Amino acid sequence: MKIAVLPGDGIGTEIVSEAVKVLNTLDLKFEMETALVGGAAYDAYGHPLPEATLKLAMDSDAVLFGAVGDWKYDTLDRPLRPEQAILGLRKNMGLFANFRPAICYEQLVGASSLKPELISGLDILIIRELTGDIYFGQPRGRRIATDGHFPGAEEAFDTMRYSKPEIERIAHVAFQAARKRKAAGTEGRVTSVDKANVLETFQFWKDVVTEVGKEYPDIALDHMYVDNAAMQLVKEPKRFDVVVTGNMFGDILSDEASMLTGSIGMLPSASLNTKNQGLYEPSHGSAPDIAGKGIANPLATILSAAMMLRFSLNQPEAAQRIEAAVQKVLALGLRTGDIWSEGTTKVGTREMGDAVVKAL
Amino acid sequence: MKIAVLPGDGIGTEIVSEAVKVLNTLDLKFEMETALVGGAAYDAYGHPLPEATLKLAMDSDAVLFGAVGDWKYDTLDRPLRPEQAILGLRKNMGLFANFRPAICYEQLVGASSLKPELISGLDILIIRELTGDIYFGQPRGRRIATDGHFPGAEEAFDTMRYSKPEIERIAHVAFQAARKRKAAGTEGRVTSVDKANVLETFQFWKDVVTEVGKEYPDIALDHMYVDNAAMQLVKEPKRFDVVVTGNMFGDILSDEASMLTGSIGMLPSASLNTKNQGLYEPSHGSAPDIAGKGIANPLATILSAAMMLRFSLNQPEAAQRIEAAVQKVLALGLRTGDIWSEGTTKVGTREMGDAVVKAL
Ligand SMILES: CC(C)[C@H](C(=O)O)[C@@H](O)C(=O)O
Ligand SMILES: CC(C)[C@H](C(=O)O)[C@@H](O)C(=O)O
Repeated sequence: MKIAVLPGDGIGTEIVSEAVKVLNTLDLKFEMETALVGGAAYDAYGHPLPEATLKLAMDSDAVLFGAVGDWKYDTLDRPLRPEQAILGLRKNMGLFANFRPAICYEQLVGASSLKPELISGLDILIIRELTGDIYFGQPRGRRIATDGHFPGAEEAFDTMRYSKPEIERIAHVAFQAARKRKAAGTEGRVTSVDKANVLETFQFWKDVVTEVGKEYPDIALDHMYVDNAAMQLVKEPKRFDVVVTGNMFGDILSDEASMLTGSIGMLPSASLNTKNQGLYEPSHGSAPDIAGKGIANPLATILSAAMMLRFSLNQPEAAQRIEAAVQKVLALGLRTGDIWSEGTTKVGTREMGDAVVKAL
Repeated sequence: MKIAVLPGDGIGTEIVSEAVKVLNTLDLKFEMETALVGGAAYDAYGHPLPEATLKLAMDSDAVLFGAVGDWKYDTLDRPLRPEQAILGLRKNMGLFANFRPAICYEQLVGASSLKPELISGLDILIIRELTGDIYFGQPRGRRIATDGHFPGAEEAFDTMRYSKPEIERIAHVAFQAARKRKAAGTEGRVTSVDKANVLETFQFWKDVVTEVGKEYPDIALDHMYVDNAAMQLVKEPKRFDVVVTGNMFGDILSDEASMLTGSIGMLPSASLNTKNQGLYEPSHGSAPDIAGKGIANPLATILSAAMMLRFSLNQPEAAQRIEAAVQKVLALGLRTGDIWSEGTTKVGTREMGDAVVKAL
């Protein structure tokens, strides 16, 4: 089992260290190799995703990723900015299926912006298509407009697109995930989010998802416009089970949902390709403002390592052990600053990692 | 002063009637003419935006619009669906500047999903570009893919685009609105929402807004990615003053923001062109589930009529009188079902309109 460890920038190195420590506590044999990515790689090699880093990732069963980005790279040309590393990994590894659970941890209900009764017990799964849509669609660029409101003016443009097989495969992922969750007690429903009333791409999306849904008579399917979905997440988040949507809408809705939970420091994510090779990273960012202070919350990264064990390394028991250990440290009242509240014990990044190791 | 009255579908007719009643109470002379739009127009004439309706709207100083849409039209071909009427009006009238205030009414703080301290006193203004972006960009359609992940497969596509003058004019609208608000006591800040880290269109957007911003040294400008904006609206909505963004992101964020307030039944909107001709409509939809029951909240529509008086008809005092009257009925404890809470008096659509008339 080969794991590429890519800590990245900001708090990335601190939180990934703790996840590696936790992995090393398990009685499993991993080959782990670390490489630079993002701003750190740019500083060392002049590129956010050096060839060697990409090769390491491609040759591994899984990538454990921290976070990338820092204000100091904001003025670089776009192809050299840290975020390009993550886009490059997704594209080159074909990581089309992004799993973003939005879970509200019972102990953290109070940390949510939402009223407790709306958020307590929340457990939804957002599945975002990750290699298509307007993120990668060609053509794109700048040019002189030849039509539209101001012919002759300078304009910029991008292309949104989805092909039938791209939609089919992510729809299957969503229905299968809903089926697994149903076996574990959820209602078994997929909500497909589109903008079929305006966009050709998402009318097609809706049509194809509807077709695929016929193969899953045990799973309910409904369709929702993206603007309405953004509202319903606020109004009644628990009405959702599995949500499936495109790359752009998924970017927005998955972030909205994770912030709603109040548990964003706790939320892992997985991005998989057709071979179950995956990239695992916390849902939160690189938080350069608190980098190096030893106060970042490593739990989302530790839980991402658990997802990695389950999805890419076929070690579901080890995954469950880690998840149980995290529950235990929460039950003990240990909290990093982002999730701390009166009556609990504030700890740093390393202490939190140590506590999870001890709980194992 | 000529007003085109377009009630539309669902609760549209009921709520627009109340707004018309309120307008008729003012000692001002309006020429008002009513026409069918949306599903109602489709039923009568086979098209959601008949020529005569469009002509009436174009020839008026302002359009007072209810809402369009009903499930029963969902199976129609896209060009015949009720929403096309609103897209057609925006396009033909050139209504590029959409004003969506997200205000939390003090008396309705409890109706919000958010904790009271996060939402109480909220008063932000979302300005959404309304005639460009992927909503109207050509080319769009279906075809066989010649490149991408699955060459040879069927695909659908749309074009996102913005030209420099389109971005400039909406940026000016935003900075000028921020300046007016600053004179009335806000901090004077514009947050431009983009996705410059991924999209050519929104890198250009950011560049052009930054340029325009130099003409407004009294107004602070910051930039935020759309995914982060969706999170910050949940985490700390009061950090915003004026938000400006494109058509697609504005659709999502303005709906998210209005639902956050808990006051969505109270929120008006305005869509203006370069001649200050405008379309005024409530932020909420046609709510077919409660249509005809006489229980819909007419206040968002009544407040939209106030916005119309201010923006398109140059009657700021009359606008203020209506707004004061609405405040008064709220202070009296009158509430339609959507905003009702223990200790207040539940009233129907007509009673609410009557109460506003009385308060005038
Ligand atoms: C960094 C950025 C390119 C990326 C995205 O937009 O996909 C991020 O927001 C995410 O969601 O992983
Ligand atoms: C009905 C639909 C086309 C419209 C839009 O997407 O603009 C609506 O959601 C709105 O925000 O006014």
